[in-house]
Amino acid sequence: TLTSFGVLFLQMGWGDLGAFGEPSKETPNLDQMAAEGMLFLDFYTANPLCSPSRAALLTGRLPVRNGFYTTNAHARNAYTPQDIVGGIQDSELLLPELLKKAGYINKIIGKWHLGHRPQFHPLKHGFDEWFGSPNCHFGPYDNRELPNIPVYRDWEMIGRYYDDFKIDLKTGEANLTQLYLQEALDFISKQQASQQPFFLYWAIDATHAPVYASKQFLGTSQRGLYGDAVREIDDSIGKILRHLQQLGISENTFVFFTSDNGAALISAPKQGGSNGPFLCGKQTTFEGGMREPAIAWWPGHIPAGGVSHQLGNVMDLFTTSLSLAGLQPPSDRQIDGIDLLPVMLQGKLIDRPIFYYRGNEMMAVRVGLYKAHYWTWSNSWEEYGKGTDFCPGQSVSGVTTHTQEEHTYLPLLFHLGRDPGEKFPLSFASEEYQRAMERITGIVQQHKDTLIPGEPQLNVCDKAIMNWSPPGCEKLGKCLKAPESDPKKCSWPH
Amino acid sequence: TLTSFGVLFLQMGWGDLGAFGEPSKETPNLDQMAAEGMLFLDFYTANPLCSPSRAALLTGRLPVRNGFYTTNAHARNAYTPQDIVGGIQDSELLLPELLKKAGYINKIIGKWHLGHRPQFHPLKHGFDEWFGSPNCHFGPYDNRELPNIPVYRDWEMIGRYYDDFKIDLKTGEANLTQLYLQEALDFISKQQASQQPFFLYWAIDATHAPVYASKQFLGTSQRGLYGDAVREIDDSIGKILRHLQQLGISENTFVFFTSDNGAALISAPKQGGSNGPFLCGKQTTFEGGMREPAIAWWPGHIPAGGVSHQLGNVMDLFTTSLSLAGLQPPSDRQIDGIDLLPVMLQGKLIDRPIFYYRGNEMMAVRVGLYKAHYWTWSNSWEEYGKGTDFCPGQSVSGVTTHTQEEHTYLPLLFHLGRDPGEKFPLSFASEEYQRAMERITGIVQQHKDTLIPGEPQLNVCDKAIMNWSPPGCEKLGKCLKAPESDPKKCSWPH
Repeated sequence: TLTSFGVLFLQMGWGDLGAFGEPSKETPNLDQMAAEGMLFLDFYTANPLCSPSRAALLTGRLPVRNGFYTTNAHARNAYTPQDIVGGIQDSELLLPELLKKAGYINKIIGKWHLGHRPQFHPLKHGFDEWFGSPNCHFGPYDNRELPNIPVYRDWEMIGRYYDDFKIDLKTGEANLTQLYLQEALDFISKQQASQQPFFLYWAIDATHAPVYASKQFLGTSQRGLYGDAVREIDDSIGKILRHLQQLGISENTFVFFTSDNGAALISAPKQGGSNGPFLCGKQTTFEGGMREPAIAWWPGHIPAGGVSHQLGNVMDLFTTSLSLAGLQPPSDRQIDGIDLLPVMLQGKLIDRPIFYYRGNEMMAVRVGLYKAHYWTWSNSWEEYGKGTDFCPGQSVSGVTTHTQEEHTYLPLLFHLGRDPGEKFPLSFASEEYQRAMERITGIVQQHKDTLIPGEPQLNVCDKAIMNWSPPGCEKLGKCLKAPESDPKKCSWPH
Repeated sequence: TLTSFGVLFLQMGWGDLGAFGEPSKETPNLDQMAAEGMLFLDFYTANPLCSPSRAALLTGRLPVRNGFYTTNAHARNAYTPQDIVGGIQDSELLLPELLKKAGYINKIIGKWHLGHRPQFHPLKHGFDEWFGSPNCHFGPYDNRELPNIPVYRDWEMIGRYYDDFKIDLKTGEANLTQLYLQEALDFISKQQASQQPFFLYWAIDATHAPVYASKQFLGTSQRGLYGDAVREIDDSIGKILRHLQQLGISENTFVFFTSDNGAALISAPKQGGSNGPFLCGKQTTFEGGMREPAIAWWPGHIPAGGVSHQLGNVMDLFTTSLSLAGLQPPSDRQIDGIDLLPVMLQGKLIDRPIFYYRGNEMMAVRVGLYKAHYWTWSNSWEEYGKGTDFCPGQSVSGVTTHTQEEHTYLPLLFHLGRDPGEKFPLSFASEEYQRAMERITGIVQQHKDTLIPGEPQLNVCDKAIMNWSPPGCEKLGKCLKAPESDPKKCSWPH
């Protein structure tokens, strides 16, 4: 029988799960998922920010290849706010497009984030169903200067955040996770009833600022509102996994839980989570920005209680899912994801590097237990002075720098086994440094020599193309008047 | 039948165990112990330094009561180097002294640290057997300026570290943990054979600088030498627990694993461990200095896989052990430890504060999830300038201060659920601050009003009383010549 997949993808830090050492230990369902499946301790996202990571997951390619980056300035994080002109290109092959050919039904629930203009719509890129929104749930907006973000059902919008889908910023109450959960359960039931293999991409965002939780979870966590959101997500994931078991399809459903970037420490403690012992958070290429919690679950196949030190990446979910569906990855382009099945099913370890990009720059690379920083930057003195701190309470001299520091001729090298927190760079004079850098230099050289960057999609912004009149707005009487087109270079301060 | 106890007590940080989120996850036996027993996530030591914590564990009393502190300067950590004149007083009642009356055989394996002069010998304070040393395994010394630390079997020394018990500082090789393991296994076998209830205090020190491991563990950890030591300890604890099971006495042996202080970050990364998401390390009264990994194990009694948020303290092991033996704690003195049996067996939560002392000063107090700092200090600018950093890579403005900052009139308040890393003090103006401080103030007032400090034992040092001629040295021809007596105030820079 064909195997179905679920990818659970959200903004949560490495240190937010009990199984990863969060002191309140409030994620019994995720901990149970880990106990029944395999914990990946060295798993990464492809970018320390949301949109590029999501594009990488769905294309199996680094953002610098699939176009989800900016060249407006050096080494800047960029994403898809609602004035972004670019988005996912038709030339990119997305996981659901490929799975479709093998008879899969594909659904995305939650945040798409690969562009909101008509040509970028998820149903044009292989998904059969969608319940969610193209952008983050920022707001509320006045619908004059800025439109509120639409919520879509399939091709059309069915309302907007704040206007029709309430988020109470004062109390943090919103029932969206419950809606997303019910969508997931219904979709799974339907596919099971028709014995239809499926791909469910559950991309919820309750732990993304503004953080929210449903009424029954508000005030239930030791950790405040952020913890309430985590508890609701944990509870929902438990319900999804139990649902698969009750329907008798858990043994042919592969489920993977991970995150699109490290916890946003700028929002801590109220709206941001924990990256455990790692340095800094979201927006940075330190471990706190890109090392992710990760759990693979496939009862009867993946041994229960497994732990892997395989260097993994969200892009691997592309290749692994294709492999599970009996498909080959496209051969006409560079694919960065690897097939993790030998890792999960036979306990193999595959030698591969992890590249840490910020926009158009390879900031760092991990090879084995060594991580070499070619550039260091937290954020600018200007932003830092305004109170934007990506590393609150942390400061490593010469590492968490507030100017972009180039180390390309003599990279800063850390041993992540002895020093997971990136606090003690190795001595440049040591034999260990020489030996490790010899190997790393070759890998980086080869990577750079063969890299063909994609057309950058995140350079141009235009207020005229915001979500003024998404498809379906007429039926609802919710079309808004767009201003004149005024395309500009987007400003990316980080 | 009477219940036996083991206390496993060593220098290891909260974040050093896989079950507590260490990314290399190299402690399968401790993780298994947690899965079979109960994890305490809010467990503390009584002091951020070794000797006072050990005195507190064995007396059930805060160091400021049992005398393990100094008044030479304000808020200074003190311990028992070999020139210390003081030690545990006869007036203190130690756990093994009390257990003896109930027919227990008591053994200490490893570091005693409650004074090395004859009157402080563990066999004069209730222990029946000893294999180990009175002080830390610092060295090697030249036996002229300083004697090497003796290793005792029961009443007499049988050799010295470095001279007779090799520690190779270059390779980190030493087989001491294997010796301590074998001692434990033999002791347990013997007591089991004679159906004798026992108390085993396994106070090993491989993770204390200079860190060491046996040959077969060297180079086996991702974490370097420190990780090798952790792996050997983990392996040893697994062997002890399996031994209890194989002898059929696991169901009447209560075992508790914890640590005497947070990981020593001054020694990181080679000789120091991890305090996970917590602030700073050993020597400080931040969470990294005093929150400890803790696991209770008692198959058939403590429910497997349990997790408790009870605020616990090493002093509770005194009271809990007495309770298990059917004994009452002494009623003629203040005992700070509480009986954790209702917590472990009935899942109760007992309301009690945690006091964070540094020498003669109450630096902070935890009540519920709130922690109020009355004084903050990491270490002096002078020590910091010399490279002594108790908080490497961490710096929280106004919190990790390098001068002793008094906050007694307006304590710094943290919510450890939302902010376990002590990075975001609550606003003094907030209602939450007012409400929490009202409660805390009363508790602190009551504590201070009723506190009767003990005679400070850690004030006077004298080179003449070092381990020149421990009992038994004559037989070995290892007596050394002591210098003239020259008692001085000990210098405690931290």
